[in-house]
Amino acid sequence: MKVKIGIAPEKAIDGVGRPTDVGVGPLRARVAEAVVRGGGEVVPLAEAEGLVWLLPGGPQPLLDTLDAHPDIRWVQLPWAGVEHFGPAFTRPQTFTCAKGSFAKQVSEHALMLILACLRDLVRHARTPSWLPIDPRSLGGRSVTILGGGGIATELIALLQPFGCRVTALRRSSTPVPGADVTLPLSSLHSVLPSTEVLVVALALTPETRHVVGAPEFALLPEGAVLVNVARGGHVDTEALVAAVDTGRLGAAGLDVTSPEPLPDGHPLWSRDRVLVTSHCADSSEYVAEMLCARIAENVRRFGLGKPLEGLVDAGAGY
Amino acid sequence: MKVKIGIAPEKAIDGVGRPTDVGVGPLRARVAEAVVRGGGEVVPLAEAEGLVWLLPGGPQPLLDTLDAHPDIRWVQLPWAGVEHFGPAFTRPQTFTCAKGSFAKQVSEHALMLILACLRDLVRHARTPSWLPIDPRSLGGRSVTILGGGGIATELIALLQPFGCRVTALRRSSTPVPGADVTLPLSSLHSVLPSTEVLVVALALTPETRHVVGAPEFALLPEGAVLVNVARGGHVDTEALVAAVDTGRLGAAGLDVTSPEPLPDGHPLWSRDRVLVTSHCADSSEYVAEMLCARIAENVRRFGLGKPLEGLVDAGAGY
Repeated sequence: MKVKIGIAPEKAIDGVGRPTDVGVGPLRARVAEAVVRGGGEVVPLAEAEGLVWLLPGGPQPLLDTLDAHPDIRWVQLPWAGVEHFGPAFTRPQTFTCAKGSFAKQVSEHALMLILACLRDLVRHARTPSWLPIDPRSLGGRSVTILGGGGIATELIALLQPFGCRVTALRRSSTPVPGADVTLPLSSLHSVLPSTEVLVVALALTPETRHVVGAPEFALLPEGAVLVNVARGGHVDTEALVAAVDTGRLGAAGLDVTSPEPLPDGHPLWSRDRVLVTSHCADSSEYVAEMLCARIAENVRRFGLGKPLEGLVDAGAGY
Repeated sequence: MKVKIGIAPEKAIDGVGRPTDVGVGPLRARVAEAVVRGGGEVVPLAEAEGLVWLLPGGPQPLLDTLDAHPDIRWVQLPWAGVEHFGPAFTRPQTFTCAKGSFAKQVSEHALMLILACLRDLVRHARTPSWLPIDPRSLGGRSVTILGGGGIATELIALLQPFGCRVTALRRSSTPVPGADVTLPLSSLHSVLPSTEVLVVALALTPETRHVVGAPEFALLPEGAVLVNVARGGHVDTEALVAAVDTGRLGAAGLDVTSPEPLPDGHPLWSRDRVLVTSHCADSSEYVAEMLCARIAENVRRFGLGKPLEGLVDAGAGY
């Protein structure tokens, strides 16, 4: 018997929240193929045991769907970060997300932001004139990574040839592969004074909101670099602007912002030591490919009754 | 007996050709320390057996110095690329340069330029507005490196975690450490059609001037990326602008240009797929440190009659 998987929305639209071919549904078609590849069959929601949820936005439509279709026991979400779906996680269903799936491209983006910050790339890119700048090298620097998931692990692998001293801070006590030191998040303040490059790469939860704010900027050595590839809510934006303007922070590279999208005219757009990329660390093709790989694997595991990948910890919220 | 080393200029000025503390001479003082560290003593040029040459500019002052002081048997030059000093290499003295010394920071800069090109960083940096761009990843790409020296070797080490297919092209047939394939430079045209990222990292000689020009751009696949961290003269600038404007070239990252400095108003300043950094891949502190390390080591070897590091091949011109 094939496992019965519903895909929401049932009509074909692109569902990862990016403005692409909405209405044509190339992603939904690929997800359907992935379900079949994993040994499942795509059925109407009314007959589904498992559900692949592709609708962007808030959790209410999902809650309504689960109310209407009580046979659904497992929900696969398409994002790595699922902070908006907290209300769903009190439900009895099993929830999985895409955490870890997109880590390779996000860590690559993080490395680029680190190098761009150290080497003053914004000034180079914005100045149409010869501008000799003494660069700073990443070689041998102390890098602190907030997070111990896929992005942290992949970033540490990319940093390996640079001979950095890497400290990883995470909730669990399991050592992060490749890190020189793994510490609990509560050690943040003791680590900041010796941190030259601070990378935010963890899940957004009530505990980690504004994990980097005025007190943390004050503890960093002057000229330190901040890179955020997680969620804008991790960083107190007002404190960030102040830290850049006082020179406390040497540079910031942000793929995520709060508010997001960052509105036109926001101070972060005009600072020449701030580089903002528009939440585009991973390509849409890569996201689709990795998401479909996870879906196929989880459908297979669901059919065999095996533990699923990317299981959301309801208590932790990610 | 200590080996007798002269340092030119004999008066204290900074000599690596960068506008720093000229007249104060912090570099000259450090070089003098390095000579002593290597077991030598700093003497007037009239008494010198070896000469550390720190004067920027052309070779004529050096030729005059060698004419005036025939006891000088060895000359240490402070640059990695010594293409302007060709006329000196017909002299009977032994010449060494800093080739290989600055490779770590230059290769780091090259990696940043590659990532910045693939991820459209110039547009991000110049657009003060949310601009979702589908990035290209470096992961698994085919990278062709022109050159088999220190920069190539160090860059290959940095590329290792990205799983790239690396082809190195060099004059000699000795395999470049870490490259998947090492080929002679004459294979360039056969390699270009499958090259996604082309990195120029070799010495400038009459043979390698304009090694990348219109015929080479025509052979690259559409959207390929060019990075030059060697010398501006390796690339035909007019052909480069044309390749960018036709879209044949996806992006270019240039730490060196021809002419250099790139004059204000030059087309390369205004293209949003071209990133120019102002010949600043390595920091002045790093250059001073690495140069002094080479000088100390070569003074030691000179005293022992051992083969020197960074020996200039007079025939090859580097």
